[in-house]
Amino acid sequence: MRLACVFSIVAKSQNPIKTLFRRHLSLVVSALPIMADSEESLRRALAEKHAAVDAQAEAVRALKAGPAFAPAEIDAAVESLKVLKVEAAAAARRLQAAVSRNVDGSIAGSREAFRQAVVNTLERRLFYIPSFKIYRGVAGLYDYGPPGCAVKSNVLAFWRQHFVLEENMLEVDCPCVTPEIVLKASGHVDKFTDLMVKDEKTGTCYRADHLLKDYCKEKLEKDLTLSSEKAAELKHILAVLDDLSADEVGAKIKEYGIAAPDTKNPLSDPYPFNLMFQTSIGPSGLSPGYMRPETAQGIFVNFKDLYYYNGNKLPFAAAQIGQAFRNEISPRQGLLRVREFTLAEIEHFVDPEDKTHPKFVDVSNLEFLMFPRKEQMAGESAKPMILGEAVSKGTVNNETLGYFIGRVYLFLARLGIDKDRLRFRQHLPNEMAHYAADCWDAEIECSYGWIECVGIADRSAYDLRAHSEKSGVALVAHEKFSESREVEKLVIVPSKKELGLAFKGNQKMVVEALEVMSEKEALKMRASLESKGEVDFHVCTLGKAVVITKNMVSINIEKKKEHQRVFTPSVIEPSFGIGRIIYCLFEHSFYTRPSKSEDEQLNVFRFPPLVAPIKCTVFPLIKTQKFDDVAKIIARSLTAAGISHIIDITGTSIGKRYARTDEIGVPFAITVDSTSSMTIRERDSKEQVRVSIDEVANVVKEVTDGQSTWADIMWRYPAHAASLADEE
Amino acid sequence: MRLACVFSIVAKSQNPIKTLFRRHLSLVVSALPIMADSEESLRRALAEKHAAVDAQAEAVRALKAGPAFAPAEIDAAVESLKVLKVEAAAAARRLQAAVSRNVDGSIAGSREAFRQAVVNTLERRLFYIPSFKIYRGVAGLYDYGPPGCAVKSNVLAFWRQHFVLEENMLEVDCPCVTPEIVLKASGHVDKFTDLMVKDEKTGTCYRADHLLKDYCKEKLEKDLTLSSEKAAELKHILAVLDDLSADEVGAKIKEYGIAAPDTKNPLSDPYPFNLMFQTSIGPSGLSPGYMRPETAQGIFVNFKDLYYYNGNKLPFAAAQIGQAFRNEISPRQGLLRVREFTLAEIEHFVDPEDKTHPKFVDVSNLEFLMFPRKEQMAGESAKPMILGEAVSKGTVNNETLGYFIGRVYLFLARLGIDKDRLRFRQHLPNEMAHYAADCWDAEIECSYGWIECVGIADRSAYDLRAHSEKSGVALVAHEKFSESREVEKLVIVPSKKELGLAFKGNQKMVVEALEVMSEKEALKMRASLESKGEVDFHVCTLGKAVVITKNMVSINIEKKKEHQRVFTPSVIEPSFGIGRIIYCLFEHSFYTRPSKSEDEQLNVFRFPPLVAPIKCTVFPLIKTQKFDDVAKIIARSLTAAGISHIIDITGTSIGKRYARTDEIGVPFAITVDSTSSMTIRERDSKEQVRVSIDEVANVVKEVTDGQSTWADIMWRYPAHAASLADEE
Repeated sequence: MRLACVFSIVAKSQNPIKTLFRRHLSLVVSALPIMADSEESLRRALAEKHAAVDAQAEAVRALKAGPAFAPAEIDAAVESLKVLKVEAAAAARRLQAAVSRNVDGSIAGSREAFRQAVVNTLERRLFYIPSFKIYRGVAGLYDYGPPGCAVKSNVLAFWRQHFVLEENMLEVDCPCVTPEIVLKASGHVDKFTDLMVKDEKTGTCYRADHLLKDYCKEKLEKDLTLSSEKAAELKHILAVLDDLSADEVGAKIKEYGIAAPDTKNPLSDPYPFNLMFQTSIGPSGLSPGYMRPETAQGIFVNFKDLYYYNGNKLPFAAAQIGQAFRNEISPRQGLLRVREFTLAEIEHFVDPEDKTHPKFVDVSNLEFLMFPRKEQMAGESAKPMILGEAVSKGTVNNETLGYFIGRVYLFLARLGIDKDRLRFRQHLPNEMAHYAADCWDAEIECSYGWIECVGIADRSAYDLRAHSEKSGVALVAHEKFSESREVEKLVIVPSKKELGLAFKGNQKMVVEALEVMSEKEALKMRASLESKGEVDFHVCTLGKAVVITKNMVSINIEKKKEHQRVFTPSVIEPSFGIGRIIYCLFEHSFYTRPSKSEDEQLNVFRFPPLVAPIKCTVFPLIKTQKFDDVAKIIARSLTAAGISHIIDITGTSIGKRYARTDEIGVPFAITVDSTSSMTIRERDSKEQVRVSIDEVANVVKEVTDGQSTWADIMWRYPAHAASLADEE
Repeated sequence: MRLACVFSIVAKSQNPIKTLFRRHLSLVVSALPIMADSEESLRRALAEKHAAVDAQAEAVRALKAGPAFAPAEIDAAVESLKVLKVEAAAAARRLQAAVSRNVDGSIAGSREAFRQAVVNTLERRLFYIPSFKIYRGVAGLYDYGPPGCAVKSNVLAFWRQHFVLEENMLEVDCPCVTPEIVLKASGHVDKFTDLMVKDEKTGTCYRADHLLKDYCKEKLEKDLTLSSEKAAELKHILAVLDDLSADEVGAKIKEYGIAAPDTKNPLSDPYPFNLMFQTSIGPSGLSPGYMRPETAQGIFVNFKDLYYYNGNKLPFAAAQIGQAFRNEISPRQGLLRVREFTLAEIEHFVDPEDKTHPKFVDVSNLEFLMFPRKEQMAGESAKPMILGEAVSKGTVNNETLGYFIGRVYLFLARLGIDKDRLRFRQHLPNEMAHYAADCWDAEIECSYGWIECVGIADRSAYDLRAHSEKSGVALVAHEKFSESREVEKLVIVPSKKELGLAFKGNQKMVVEALEVMSEKEALKMRASLESKGEVDFHVCTLGKAVVITKNMVSINIEKKKEHQRVFTPSVIEPSFGIGRIIYCLFEHSFYTRPSKSEDEQLNVFRFPPLVAPIKCTVFPLIKTQKFDDVAKIIARSLTAAGISHIIDITGTSIGKRYARTDEIGVPFAITVDSTSSMTIRERDSKEQVRVSIDEVANVVKEVTDGQSTWADIMWRYPAHAASLADEE
């Protein structure tokens, strides 16, 4: 029953559903005001120039039509007009540049070109493939082809090593098919929605907020005649987009005359569309189910068993890797917004009264880009901070949250994410669910802007409480006292009789609202009742305030002996969007370099060996049985050493073969040019060493396992000078 | 268009859907006739004894009621009756024993007890958990808890190593959400059904074949008065259950008076229920989709890209690990028949004219239990065969199929499946889809009988052809000839005009049927047309034969020059039900042994280190800071060596702690009883060696990686004699 009240609060402010992976687009934009000063002055300057041009043009016209025809004067006036027009054009260019920079943080065009180059390479080399392509595909569904699948499986294996094994987490594996009651308890059935509008003639559906956002962005970018007041209004809409109600969004769409993008037909009013894929469990058609929108609920419903498994001790963490599903209204942005994706989630359960972490010292000296709430509100940008200081100063709420921020940083850096394009951004008050203690997102910058890839949230006791309420099974922890303690307890006893007399049918709602008051509220009420005899009390389930008098409720602090503390643990949840991390990794790893003959640009992915889809290639230099046999011997020793590899025995030039594997990010290539020793080439430096056949597999293993660096290898083995033919 | 015809053939004989993981129950039973001889004679013997008892009882009655009252004679007759009754009871016992043995292969009771012991341990130690337990669960959905999840992830990692890496397969990762058209092409939308009946009053649904099967089995097991004719009839039904139509199943249910098991209410007629979970893709509600029932289709639709990725060369294999979904009507058998499960599937594409395999020699000497079609039909049992001989004798259709059978055997044996309870059973003609060249199932015996865990099928060109037809994209391979070849080609040209005159509206069906004739059929038709001028021709899409005359079709062999061969590759598909393999592994690994004090039985899982959920535990012998610190140092070195482990610092006796980890199958335990050296204990032998702190992590790594055996370790390090207190 407590839930009803919580939800009605929520309806007015934030959605109880985790915002992870849903809000970043508007957030990127909500950071806009920080750069608006110069833009506004440029807009004003341009308006002034336009006004000056208009005035001068009028003057010229007046001169020409005037009674006193004075050619010299007219020439001078025309000259002035020309100068003013040139100045106006320059002001327009400055504004255009400022606007482009502000909206995307860099020039949009070059970003698009870079993205196109990456995506072309990714699709051509089958890192990913639009699913069901031969049937013209399905928006928002992608396959990982062989190299993409290998990268993904390397990322997941490292995640398991870095988090599950290193921290002794309890990994579980729950089904995707989920009965309705579970997602009713979590709030997804009622609240996991996006606002949708329909083309009134064709029925095509669009996300209402996307249309409004696109309109505002396009106006701001392209319409240089926009008044600075209007610009400020559009920016405000972008900043508060997620907080607008269906009616507010609908009113704006009407006001701006936004039509269906494809047909220009009128649009319906916005209405909420639930983003879960619905299905039916069993043959009766009477048990609705959904494909899970996140993996976390599978852990929460198992809390009791997992707590027991852990010897009834806190803290402990459970983890799950698995598919999640969101039936997006109109997916766009390629791999970043898809209808099915792999999540890796951790739920770390902790005593709310003790959020210290014994291993925090291991990460407290890390320094990286952080973007606290304060800096965002002040219009500043992300800045390097030492994690230990961020926690000790209270910027990060607690040590455990801080510990996971540090571990996430190490994880992403080891994968090969560029540290300069990785920041931890704290949620603003309006982004955070009301129950959350603190939230930070690991955001990675790519050609789409700053993308939320990992959410790290202290969700307090919300989820366990919700399932306790719905299931009737207490999801709580116990702390046994060594000796019993006397504790003070707040006891609120509403008088049902008096309340019934006063509020009739509403009695139940008032009783419940009184019972769930926080200690602070209750003590304040008691003070008011004692001093004034009555008090105004807002009952959220009624949506209004009622007058409570002294005889309606007794509020007392009582002393009790207790032998144990029973409490709902807090949960700290790092949640990883694996596909987004991988896409950003693709962009951060991609570069081009000229071929030897400098007539074309070659593509390279600089994946670290840890994530490279294949660790090593084996190339017989020329097509001969002798070298092919040696290549097979090496392949066998690589297999024995557990190194994934491919042999390329095509007769193509060695340079072409290098280029082909650089393009899928293979870090090392063994070229067989003799039967006793061969060369190993490193992808990015293109340096080569010569190693004997007996050692070659072990050397590759050392350097892919990270036991040695390439520099170590260069120092230990003779360098091989590449012949002219070696590189294309 | 070819498809329509194929399907109409199918409708009359086999379902085009792969039978993997759907039929084993009836198959177990269909093997019954092989043991029926003795059962039948016992049934006859019992009937004779009953008749003799009846006759003797009648004789006694006659004597007693007779005119000549002769006490001695009556006593003798009563004595004979007693003897006959004792003999009848013995005959009934013999029959009962034979029946129990025949139906389950062993005594059902002890199997049940064993299963209960395993399942209790698995559930208590959270190997698995009924999903959403706090909400009373959902039939057919299970979570893997921490140790089960670790076993699963070890099995999958080894699968990837053994198949994908070792064989350079192209691994892909496709979504579960699948649009209707793909599953329409594969046949799942129309044919992936089970027959369902409803309780006419409550609406509860049951699988029609299960009810009929249960009735027959129960009758055969429990009703000893059954005539041997009736018994033969019930056995026949069990054997052909999968081939019965809805009408036939319905008729039998009526004839036997089978009612709803829970309520005894009458049942509806059987009707087909599609087993796919249906959903809707996107917000419009106009794009139906399904949760994939297998992972294979994702590979087939990508064939063209994958073939290109492989340099347009055959053979190559693609692989996929992922979730699959089947909305079972009424799941039972715990982990063996579930609504969501992990499949690992391989599609090996090969030239249908060359199914040799270069690595077949690596497996040809393997010897294991095989159960060819011939032995099954002859009522014999599985027998050890050498794989190379099975292929050379033609028992196994081709080398590539044989190679995968061998690799699957090695995979299962390495996991710890008991070789004596693993057999490869060939599909009987009535089990195999019409297009399949040959199919073998890896069946593992557990308490539920022989369970199909891996299907290895040569599916010929069926799947690629189906998607070519539906998508209009040619999924074919090319073989370029070094010089052009003259080939003979069969050319069938139906005369549309003549056929139109003769068959009117049916012309199209006849034309198509003529066009898809095989070479053999066509040549036979040509011969008949030449000799007799006309021929009867069965058109499957019409469901009848028509008369074809000479002027209606020309059939010729023409010579043509060709530069390449274009063909649809065959696919050989090993498909692994990971959950079933794991469940059988649990049963094969489980045993109990008495505690030291012999007052209780302790549970042990003898998992090989490869699959053990945790490789090693660390126990400080007594609770002291000094030993706890050493334990932490060891834990760090184990983490560095990549060995999963747990520390147990509870003050429980060391014997209890050993028992606790034996029960989740941890193979090694390090007990810290000094700061310089410690003991390592092996789970099954309970032997201990003493190793120095510097070496301990490496020794555990060696023996878990399989570089050394426990015997090697025992030989290298001093044995530690366990004290009395060591083992419970």
